[in-house]
Amino acid sequence: MTGPEPATDRRLSRRRLLGTGAAGAAGYALAGSAGTAAAAKARKVDVIVVGAGLAGLAAGRKLKQAGRSFVVLEARERVGGRTLNVDIGHGKVVEIGGQWVGPTQNRVLKLIKQLGLRTFKTFVDGDNLYYRAGTLQRYRGTIPPVGPTVLAELATVLADTDSMAAQVPLEAPWDAASALEWDSQTAETWKLQHALLPETRDLYDLAIASVFAAEPRDLSLLGVLFYTHSGGSFENLINTAGGAQDSRIVGGSQQIAIRLAKRLGRSVVLGAPVFEIDHGNGGVEISTRHGRFIGRRAIIALAPVMASRIRYTPALPARRDQLTQRVPMGTVIKCMAIYDRPFWRDQGLSGMATSNTGPVKLTFDNSPPDGKPGVLLGFAEGQEGRDLLGLPQSKRRAQVLASFERYFGSKARTGALRYIDKSWAADPWTRGCYVGYYPPGVLVGYRDAVRASVDRLHWAGTETATEWNGYMDGAIQSGYRAAREALERL
Amino acid sequence: MTGPEPATDRRLSRRRLLGTGAAGAAGYALAGSAGTAAAAKARKVDVIVVGAGLAGLAAGRKLKQAGRSFVVLEARERVGGRTLNVDIGHGKVVEIGGQWVGPTQNRVLKLIKQLGLRTFKTFVDGDNLYYRAGTLQRYRGTIPPVGPTVLAELATVLADTDSMAAQVPLEAPWDAASALEWDSQTAETWKLQHALLPETRDLYDLAIASVFAAEPRDLSLLGVLFYTHSGGSFENLINTAGGAQDSRIVGGSQQIAIRLAKRLGRSVVLGAPVFEIDHGNGGVEISTRHGRFIGRRAIIALAPVMASRIRYTPALPARRDQLTQRVPMGTVIKCMAIYDRPFWRDQGLSGMATSNTGPVKLTFDNSPPDGKPGVLLGFAEGQEGRDLLGLPQSKRRAQVLASFERYFGSKARTGALRYIDKSWAADPWTRGCYVGYYPPGVLVGYRDAVRASVDRLHWAGTETATEWNGYMDGAIQSGYRAAREALERL
Repeated sequence: MTGPEPATDRRLSRRRLLGTGAAGAAGYALAGSAGTAAAAKARKVDVIVVGAGLAGLAAGRKLKQAGRSFVVLEARERVGGRTLNVDIGHGKVVEIGGQWVGPTQNRVLKLIKQLGLRTFKTFVDGDNLYYRAGTLQRYRGTIPPVGPTVLAELATVLADTDSMAAQVPLEAPWDAASALEWDSQTAETWKLQHALLPETRDLYDLAIASVFAAEPRDLSLLGVLFYTHSGGSFENLINTAGGAQDSRIVGGSQQIAIRLAKRLGRSVVLGAPVFEIDHGNGGVEISTRHGRFIGRRAIIALAPVMASRIRYTPALPARRDQLTQRVPMGTVIKCMAIYDRPFWRDQGLSGMATSNTGPVKLTFDNSPPDGKPGVLLGFAEGQEGRDLLGLPQSKRRAQVLASFERYFGSKARTGALRYIDKSWAADPWTRGCYVGYYPPGVLVGYRDAVRASVDRLHWAGTETATEWNGYMDGAIQSGYRAAREALERL
Repeated sequence: MTGPEPATDRRLSRRRLLGTGAAGAAGYALAGSAGTAAAAKARKVDVIVVGAGLAGLAAGRKLKQAGRSFVVLEARERVGGRTLNVDIGHGKVVEIGGQWVGPTQNRVLKLIKQLGLRTFKTFVDGDNLYYRAGTLQRYRGTIPPVGPTVLAELATVLADTDSMAAQVPLEAPWDAASALEWDSQTAETWKLQHALLPETRDLYDLAIASVFAAEPRDLSLLGVLFYTHSGGSFENLINTAGGAQDSRIVGGSQQIAIRLAKRLGRSVVLGAPVFEIDHGNGGVEISTRHGRFIGRRAIIALAPVMASRIRYTPALPARRDQLTQRVPMGTVIKCMAIYDRPFWRDQGLSGMATSNTGPVKLTFDNSPPDGKPGVLLGFAEGQEGRDLLGLPQSKRRAQVLASFERYFGSKARTGALRYIDKSWAADPWTRGCYVGYYPPGVLVGYRDAVRASVDRLHWAGTETATEWNGYMDGAIQSGYRAAREALERL
């Protein structure tokens, strides 16, 4: 079900701290059982970081800068979490996870520079396509070619959303004056009251799905408003040029994590899933199949639901545990077809299509900077993604290419040299993308439990971010913040 | 945080299949590490049942009746799951978990008889109390003494709820004609549109919290309607006499599980938490600190969120996994104070109070059948429960007794001989009560994933029930159904 793993991180796996050893049939050893040898080798550090996604690696970076000892434990044989490059030959990659950066995402933009990486603009030249009711129309810019009444209503919906979002404190969304009212309803309920035209409603659905990989009915209105404020404005979230999809990273977004990890060297331990964390007795102790680690504090840099699947001794407080039952991951299958060249550009098309017909309702030109080869990117998001979850990749391919054909003609189907997709919900170390979202009642019900430290445990991950929550930038903010928390208490 | 565990199940723990052995510092051994000895002793059965709550034990019962071999693995040193007796001396018990049964709960009522247990009526003689705006009023029956406009509105709300609920197919709530509309909104949204008077709204909130241990804003309207239909009617859910709180079980509700377990004998293994399930290679294999078990099929009789914390090899399909991210457990602290006698009866009071002021907004007389000693029972549910989660028991006691005093006078505070409570969200093997509930979008988004078997794995637990979902009766139905599924495929 999952896409191919990249070859780019092989060097990292060689850097593993300890050999795989003979750790039992189950693939890992617990201290005290087969772990007796490992027990002797227990490595003591100031901070144990769990998860080598951007949040965990950013935390490691700050810990290193502070001169503290640490280790970053990663379940997979790669770093990068929800960013993942796929090699498509000739030194080119496409990203099957998070890939875009944009203005005001200052932390990730700064880090990209510091790591010697470069960005390039997402391809937007030419006309976009708008598919509705069996007809295709060309348009330019963000807003599809809708009639004046829809346009007016859409503008009001966006303006109202931004205006409400601005009233949501990023550090404490539950303290908004209207928090209870907004957290008591779904975004769907709000939409039905504020968008009366079917076309406006469809566009709202598409925008929400493209941002959350969930449906308006799944989401707390307060959650949507917090997220919007966190990214600046709703247009920021959905825009390509000038927005959250403005730019891409040469060599692929996973390079951020790969380069961060290289700088952390032997402190990053791959293939070391963490199933249990002992945080009693004055420290934190974690046994993995690559050894036993003892830290003074720990940073758990995982999405809330993934963090909930670790066993904690002592058990976590009820409030934290119940929070982690309530922040489900969205559902997206990221799909790409590769062509000899980006043929749509010849027709003056940008490769971007927006549609009210699934499974792919949103596409982009995702070709490498030099346009070789041509890559069409499509998303099956929210319910469209869920509907594909049970299908084998061959059937997903057929459905996705049919969507591409609908927008870009038969060559989009017949000319596909390769099809790549990844269902993040099927990935056992992620279980959904883009982000853990808030159903109604959770923000006012559990307040800061997503971020509030528990004894020696600090929580990172983009879900804990206040700025650009859900994005790479937010992941980095969260790692820095968790590291600061830990450093202050060492 | 958790209440005391009862002494009544000690005999069972002696019946454990295997001794505790030297299973490593972490408390259990995996096959292939310290489990080499255990590996030799691997016990082969037709069906492995995980969880010795009512669902798992009911499944075991059916498997035994069918003459199949099985084992029921239980993490705790007791059976009964969300039912739990507490010994209060002199051979008396109170229940700190689920306790009531009522008409149309035919499966549990039949089982109670078959196990030689008896029921008695919940004490309802005398006047109930209604607290609002600083005043106490006496009343009789289910509906508090509200004015005629509130009464009329409340009657309409209840009738509308029942009427909509009747349109929700119990086997497939997502197929209701209005499923999408109802699953797109919270019960709060519906309430705000259909109950305009503050007092009606407060009563609706109280009723919802008493049934779901969650707030109307947390719940999908479709979820509420399904649950209502599952229990027959909304009044069925909230009524004492004639409703879901009609009767109690002599000796305590946990006796159902204890007696079921006794009949299953050595097939029930206590203190054997299941952390990993291998269901590839033509069978199911589970290693516990009490040995290794190999089954042809398995029944996982846990609430969805608890089932999600087991590691499955191969990993579960995305649809099932994402479902389990979306069915959070409610929040309730069940609180009891014990008095020399039920002094409120002297004043002609039933012990039942309903209130719009927390933390305890609902109380019952929970004295043993002979009225000795007197026991007042109160619930802190939904947000009231969440607000108490972080407090030590001494502070919970003070707040709860202050609530009791508000309704029953100073003797309710000063005369309390003992205070008992249990925060089910703090219990690491339950993590919330009464039940896993549906936020908006989940039923239409994931449909039958709560119950649909995966390869050799069958799902039980009251959350999977179609009749009396969330109740002991539903748990039993689910166990019988899962056993039938497994038996059909052996």
